[in-house]
Amino acid sequence: MIKVGIIGATGYAGVELIRILLNHPQAELVAVSSVSFEGKALSEVYPSLVGLCDLPCCSAQEAIEKSDIVFACVQHGISQEFAAQCAERGVAFVDLGADFRLKEEADYAQWYGGVYTHKQLHEQAVYALPELFREQIKKARILANPGCYPTSVALGLAPALREGLIEPQGIVIDSKSGVTGSGRSPSETAHFPNCNEAFSPYKIASHRHTPEIEQTLSTVAGETLRVVFVPHLLPLNRGIISTMYARLKPGVEETQLREAYQRAYRAERFVRVLAPGKTANLRNVRCSNFCDISLHMDARTGTLIAVSAIDNMVKGAAGQAVQNMNLLFGLPEETGLQMIPTCF
Amino acid sequence: MIKVGIIGATGYAGVELIRILLNHPQAELVAVSSVSFEGKALSEVYPSLVGLCDLPCCSAQEAIEKSDIVFACVQHGISQEFAAQCAERGVAFVDLGADFRLKEEADYAQWYGGVYTHKQLHEQAVYALPELFREQIKKARILANPGCYPTSVALGLAPALREGLIEPQGIVIDSKSGVTGSGRSPSETAHFPNCNEAFSPYKIASHRHTPEIEQTLSTVAGETLRVVFVPHLLPLNRGIISTMYARLKPGVEETQLREAYQRAYRAERFVRVLAPGKTANLRNVRCSNFCDISLHMDARTGTLIAVSAIDNMVKGAAGQAVQNMNLLFGLPEETGLQMIPTCF
Amino acid sequence: MIKVGIIGATGYAGVELIRILLNHPQAELVAVSSVSFEGKALSEVYPSLVGLCDLPCCSAQEAIEKSDIVFACVQHGISQEFAAQCAERGVAFVDLGADFRLKEEADYAQWYGGVYTHKQLHEQAVYALPELFREQIKKARILANPGCYPTSVALGLAPALREGLIEPQGIVIDSKSGVTGSGRSPSETAHFPNCNEAFSPYKIASHRHTPEIEQTLSTVAGETLRVVFVPHLLPLNRGIISTMYARLKPGVEETQLREAYQRAYRAERFVRVLAPGKTANLRNVRCSNFCDISLHMDARTGTLIAVSAIDNMVKGAAGQAVQNMNLLFGLPEETGLQMIPTCF
Amino acid sequence: MIKVGIIGATGYAGVELIRILLNHPQAELVAVSSVSFEGKALSEVYPSLVGLCDLPCCSAQEAIEKSDIVFACVQHGISQEFAAQCAERGVAFVDLGADFRLKEEADYAQWYGGVYTHKQLHEQAVYALPELFREQIKKARILANPGCYPTSVALGLAPALREGLIEPQGIVIDSKSGVTGSGRSPSETAHFPNCNEAFSPYKIASHRHTPEIEQTLSTVAGETLRVVFVPHLLPLNRGIISTMYARLKPGVEETQLREAYQRAYRAERFVRVLAPGKTANLRNVRCSNFCDISLHMDARTGTLIAVSAIDNMVKGAAGQAVQNMNLLFGLPEETGLQMIPTCF
Repeated sequence: MIKVGIIGATGYAGVELIRILLNHPQAELVAVSSVSFEGKALSEVYPSLVGLCDLPCCSAQEAIEKSDIVFACVQHGISQEFAAQCAERGVAFVDLGADFRLKEEADYAQWYGGVYTHKQLHEQAVYALPELFREQIKKARILANPGCYPTSVALGLAPALREGLIEPQGIVIDSKSGVTGSGRSPSETAHFPNCNEAFSPYKIASHRHTPEIEQTLSTVAGETLRVVFVPHLLPLNRGIISTMYARLKPGVEETQLREAYQRAYRAERFVRVLAPGKTANLRNVRCSNFCDISLHMDARTGTLIAVSAIDNMVKGAAGQAVQNMNLLFGLPEETGLQMIPTCF
Repeated sequence: MIKVGIIGATGYAGVELIRILLNHPQAELVAVSSVSFEGKALSEVYPSLVGLCDLPCCSAQEAIEKSDIVFACVQHGISQEFAAQCAERGVAFVDLGADFRLKEEADYAQWYGGVYTHKQLHEQAVYALPELFREQIKKARILANPGCYPTSVALGLAPALREGLIEPQGIVIDSKSGVTGSGRSPSETAHFPNCNEAFSPYKIASHRHTPEIEQTLSTVAGETLRVVFVPHLLPLNRGIISTMYARLKPGVEETQLREAYQRAYRAERFVRVLAPGKTANLRNVRCSNFCDISLHMDARTGTLIAVSAIDNMVKGAAGQAVQNMNLLFGLPEETGLQMIPTCF
Repeated sequence: MIKVGIIGATGYAGVELIRILLNHPQAELVAVSSVSFEGKALSEVYPSLVGLCDLPCCSAQEAIEKSDIVFACVQHGISQEFAAQCAERGVAFVDLGADFRLKEEADYAQWYGGVYTHKQLHEQAVYALPELFREQIKKARILANPGCYPTSVALGLAPALREGLIEPQGIVIDSKSGVTGSGRSPSETAHFPNCNEAFSPYKIASHRHTPEIEQTLSTVAGETLRVVFVPHLLPLNRGIISTMYARLKPGVEETQLREAYQRAYRAERFVRVLAPGKTANLRNVRCSNFCDISLHMDARTGTLIAVSAIDNMVKGAAGQAVQNMNLLFGLPEETGLQMIPTCF
Repeated sequence: MIKVGIIGATGYAGVELIRILLNHPQAELVAVSSVSFEGKALSEVYPSLVGLCDLPCCSAQEAIEKSDIVFACVQHGISQEFAAQCAERGVAFVDLGADFRLKEEADYAQWYGGVYTHKQLHEQAVYALPELFREQIKKARILANPGCYPTSVALGLAPALREGLIEPQGIVIDSKSGVTGSGRSPSETAHFPNCNEAFSPYKIASHRHTPEIEQTLSTVAGETLRVVFVPHLLPLNRGIISTMYARLKPGVEETQLREAYQRAYRAERFVRVLAPGKTANLRNVRCSNFCDISLHMDARTGTLIAVSAIDNMVKGAAGQAVQNMNLLFGLPEETGLQMIPTCF
């Protein structure tokens, strides 16, 4: 059994990890840490867990000491120190935050206003999107679990970009996320009467996931590209839809595109490329680790419209983190992740 | 592996059964039948199941022939014939509809307007609420899976009634259910702009679950009782809350009540009696087989207020049906039912 | 034109008053005060008001000085001092909070933990539910605008109680309110992922509106009565449904009941007693000042089930306050209140 | 008083017209027609209107005969005949459907599969978006009330296009609409459990509003242009947000853009161009005739992101129709349209 610790266990990503790990046949949850709730039982904070996980919240230190692998679900800027401690003790480290996602410290400085305090750790860290970077993940000890939006975007565009079927420049990404994306702390944004029966974009062309998206897409495309990225807040709990617009390269046919996506994802357990005529909908992936992708050609304007749907808390956070753990520990990738989407 | 067939697989209870059974370690889904979608793949109707259950819908006949156990998710009046065919072939039969729930044919005639066409089957049938009637269930071959409202009510009131702590007469039950309770067919009732940002009781004191509730409570209380039962439609997908009001017998103390519930449910895997000061909320049981119960004393008026919460599609339908299957086949009761509530 | 000031204008009741008063043909909004947003334009806080009400928030003092009538939308305990200042200056005062609702200071002390600092003001204050106490309101200068739940309950039960058609003791009131009832400040309770797809009772048999409900019902019934009152939080923005259960006096017929309600409300502009077979639904009164009431007899148990629906922010707060202002100033009661329910 | 008739009064646009017209000081609703509900009172279909509009539904014929102006809220293909009858009797005609929106019959044939049976009426008809075509509207007798999406798009892009500040080609329009847009008839699409907690694009690059959008934008731009248009279905009742992406012409500065929008809309009662830093949100226009527009520059990619928000049932349908009626009859344009957004 893999001994698992979670730092920042009472945030939404943390509690979703717990929901998954409690049913993981090869993992044992040994420690959950929380600054805000230290000493309190997790089920006090989340009554859904009464009788299922009554572990008391401990310190981050304790979590690191007890575990073979630690998941950190904390604000950016805080993970690096935990990563260092894990590295020292030989504990695998999966950061669900942003501290290890960006290769260029300059990007981190610009978008997050921080510095890389442990540069050698950043050199070892791997951007852990399994469908694109599986082999590197297997060999790593520090994993940067991708952001929710970047996961949906990278999976939705990678095959077309990699095979040169769309123009890498001028891509427009219009994403929509459920409210769990804004976290468990009450806020104006997530106040029910403010977001129920409401809808709006936010952080227009300035969201911190932008450089992460560009980094992955540039890697895949083999050239530096920039995107227009606009997230929106949906009045629902879980899920992200990204609607992505790219100009088709001259002469590209729909079959070529579909074949590229088939090649990329045929063997993937968690990516479903939908049949022609079907459209991705976030309800079809809810509470599961799937990413559904649908492809649409607008012949009138020469545009590929790719739509991808994930559960932001699963494939966009905790599920992908467990998928990464499975890779690290040599388990079948789907272990503990076979949740069927709830669909209603 | 138990071979399982589902009749009426494309209704919500049917598809929820599939969601559960696909992850059940001892069951194999061998046939799904549907009148409306015969020949069509289930994943055509529910795209959430693409790649997970692409079984084509077959006839009821075929489902019965292939299975060790059949779940019927059909309108009342239709199940009896299926039950007879199963009985003949030695196939266990779990009816998620209402045909076998009422002991008195007169009640069935009055509330459902039907007749018992196979009286000997009704004599064999067992009302399959495991926490109350476990031993009978184990020996039966025809099971009447309880209705969603009656499950929430019976579990919420049984201990107090059985131990004579509340007056059996004058009980008021104010229940609220999510919209999945009204089924998968589009209707005025379930039209989004009609029920979103809306709330209302319906079938006031005339809902068909009334005699079923009274039958169970009367059995438990040891005397015939009548209840006032008013269901309401909540603008959400899943879940039932029943708020139940009963006069306390003179001199009854809160500790007595709590002890009665502890005695009744201490060993139960799926019933959680909440600690004093906590209140049941349907989000804490969502997508799980739990029934959460909270108890509240109104000393000012001498009233017990019991609140019970279930997921209407799981403990109120498909989950309870699988729990019953486990009992029938001698499996640990929680097999395949360890889903952690999603909570958000 | 009546000069109107609002103290606590940036809370939900305050901004709903503004929404109504901006279209009131005889009222002019002259001052809006807010402690949290003093100096800021109201439309900064509520962008829906851009170009419609760009008044800067002032002090309470200033609001009192400029106005013929002041509406106070503040936490209990704070209004009494404002009322005193208004009384001194001859300004009419409508308290949308709880400070003047309870006749007995002992009740206020018990349920709110406060004291009556200006007892003579309390003697002058009138409980301002127009349909029940219209004549007193016309002559008053300090009005206690009723609470949202108590409005729905009092209108729903008064005719039956007044005419002695139901037993005054043993009444059960199961109420459900939208989230605006919990105010504009972000909180755990109103955090979107906590209340969306969730439902639960709260403050069971201990909500502060209980003594207010009992006070009005006792007055109407002519005897002291106690009720069981349980509020619930609905995942929607606006509206309250109260489902009320009372034992019918022996021999009472449905026609008697309907006639009693007709007599009571025939001439009322804002109360609609629905036809037999119809059920009150909060969506039919949304954004309007109506109270819809439906009556249901459960002959099996001898129970009257009365259902009342209001918009908690209109008839349950701001609309009723304007109705009271109209009464005070001798205007037709419906002036500025002719909003048609939005219904979807 | 203007005598108003509504054909197709029981659809959502029809009942929203009624909601507005009942409070219009210069209009009298004289006839409401409905094929499905002929003879039934409107308040039977919409209980929110009990006591407010108990008119029985009549025939279209009767509505035309009694009225000075007729609003038609019917499926495309049906309006032309009604328009002809109105023209004959000198009755003004406002079509809320699509029959008179497209100038080119070829477009109508391609996108709607219909023919223009009364070509001379089409020559007289005016596309009635007041902010763009006010003078033509005043002189017309047959008005094509714009579609909901096209209203939000045209208002959001017209100033930039007209002044040549953005590239007319390559515009991407990602729109999101509430469920009322799909009408009052129950359907799979609008079934609550299908769209609650769900989100998805639909009719990708093939929605019938596409040619209407292109027609208006081409007129404004002075050249034929094509757009990529993708609508999505939001899990809420009312409102449309369009997020629009256009390449800035070289050298264009934000101030130029803001000035262009100010010039265009400064004198407009119903268009609000938000201050820099603010973002349009559909909740700020709900139940009102406003269109809120926010402008965002992405300097990194040289992109204008314009966001517009309307209530699809008001500015996107019934409100705009009344605005047009006011223009036709020489009334102040805002008569009866001063509804303040409800905002929660």
